[in-house]
Amino acid sequence: MGEIGLYEAMSSCRAVRRQRPDPIPDEVVRRLIEAATWAPTGANSQPWRVIAVRDADTKQRLQELYLGPWNAYEKNARQAFKGLGPEALASQERVLAAATHLAKQMHRSPVIFVFCFNPERMAITDAEQPRPSVVGGGSVYPAVQNLLLAARAEGLGCVLTTLLCMREPEVRALLEIPEPWATCAFVPVGIPASRGHGPLSRRPPEKMAFLDRWGAPLF
Amino acid sequence: MGEIGLYEAMSSCRAVRRQRPDPIPDEVVRRLIEAATWAPTGANSQPWRVIAVRDADTKQRLQELYLGPWNAYEKNARQAFKGLGPEALASQERVLAAATHLAKQMHRSPVIFVFCFNPERMAITDAEQPRPSVVGGGSVYPAVQNLLLAARAEGLGCVLTTLLCMREPEVRALLEIPEPWATCAFVPVGIPASRGHGPLSRRPPEKMAFLDRWGAPLF
Repeated sequence: MGEIGLYEAMSSCRAVRRQRPDPIPDEVVRRLIEAATWAPTGANSQPWRVIAVRDADTKQRLQELYLGPWNAYEKNARQAFKGLGPEALASQERVLAAATHLAKQMHRSPVIFVFCFNPERMAITDAEQPRPSVVGGGSVYPAVQNLLLAARAEGLGCVLTTLLCMREPEVRALLEIPEPWATCAFVPVGIPASRGHGPLSRRPPEKMAFLDRWGAPLF
Repeated sequence: MGEIGLYEAMSSCRAVRRQRPDPIPDEVVRRLIEAATWAPTGANSQPWRVIAVRDADTKQRLQELYLGPWNAYEKNARQAFKGLGPEALASQERVLAAATHLAKQMHRSPVIFVFCFNPERMAITDAEQPRPSVVGGGSVYPAVQNLLLAARAEGLGCVLTTLLCMREPEVRALLEIPEPWATCAFVPVGIPASRGHGPLSRRPPEKMAFLDRWGAPLF
């Protein structure tokens, strides 16, 4: 097949929150998961697993669990809109409308990938630092990102969400996830229902990078 | 240019720990960082920055700081080798030799990318769960992974390391990183000095994925 280029895939890999319910073929699901396995993990331990949730009742229960944290998040987000100019406000409102759509329709996506991780199989090198730890994520989110990029290559839309981590006990019971495995990412995937992939809105490299020490311009 | 395909890049993006000191052109460094910006972050907040360390003295100091945690890690790793069969042992010894080479020669890589993050700009949805938090990593490691893949596309070798998070206070002082920004990834990048990119050794999708609930085969 004519494979999509790497930079083309990365530069157009938008969060796609409006998805059609059409099923995704098994071989495509397998390619997405294989792409995830290619990502690096600490000591090559691959301390993650993924549950592909396709069952209608299970997806619906996930959507119901999602709504509580989503409603709280949306309320906070609207507070933060105060003081935005009209253009920025309109842009934020568009994102929020799509995210609200997702919160209400997530169960209609053909697959929801639930990524799990095992903290006991990770060397969490920032565990002792006096601030929130993130390093465990270094052995799971590269895999999630590979899956998002593979979905882009397959013409599928998806979005990385983590809100359901706030309902981990209920998700654990629903999906029978054994201790000490835990949840780290929820990725609904489906054919884009509206505009789908395209140009991204991001802060440019000039504002993201320094040379040799903090604050020194690189470019 | 004839762009590398997405799946080709992902499936051959090996950890390359032996790197040549040849400098990396500015425009290539910029492409790597731009690729990182394309990754998703929570609420599109891009709560990370990257310091491209090129200064010889600063790289050398990073390498010196790395050696302490590396020596401890290597000792532990060798303990874990006991009981391995000859083939697995030989494979692990090869990885360890390359990682030891990196620990001693990291300063010779032309660039070391130091990724920083701001926990105050993250919604860490698993902060209340009774296990190590990883969700903050969901807004930084997709960007790191994009940079690794872009390096692959540019014919450059690199490897994601996090050991220096154990020396964060010293790294913070060296690179003048202001609170509350903190470190999450250290990526030396250079032209591969030996075999470079190629096939990966990974657990296959069949062992990584379930259908609808934990333990149920997907394929």
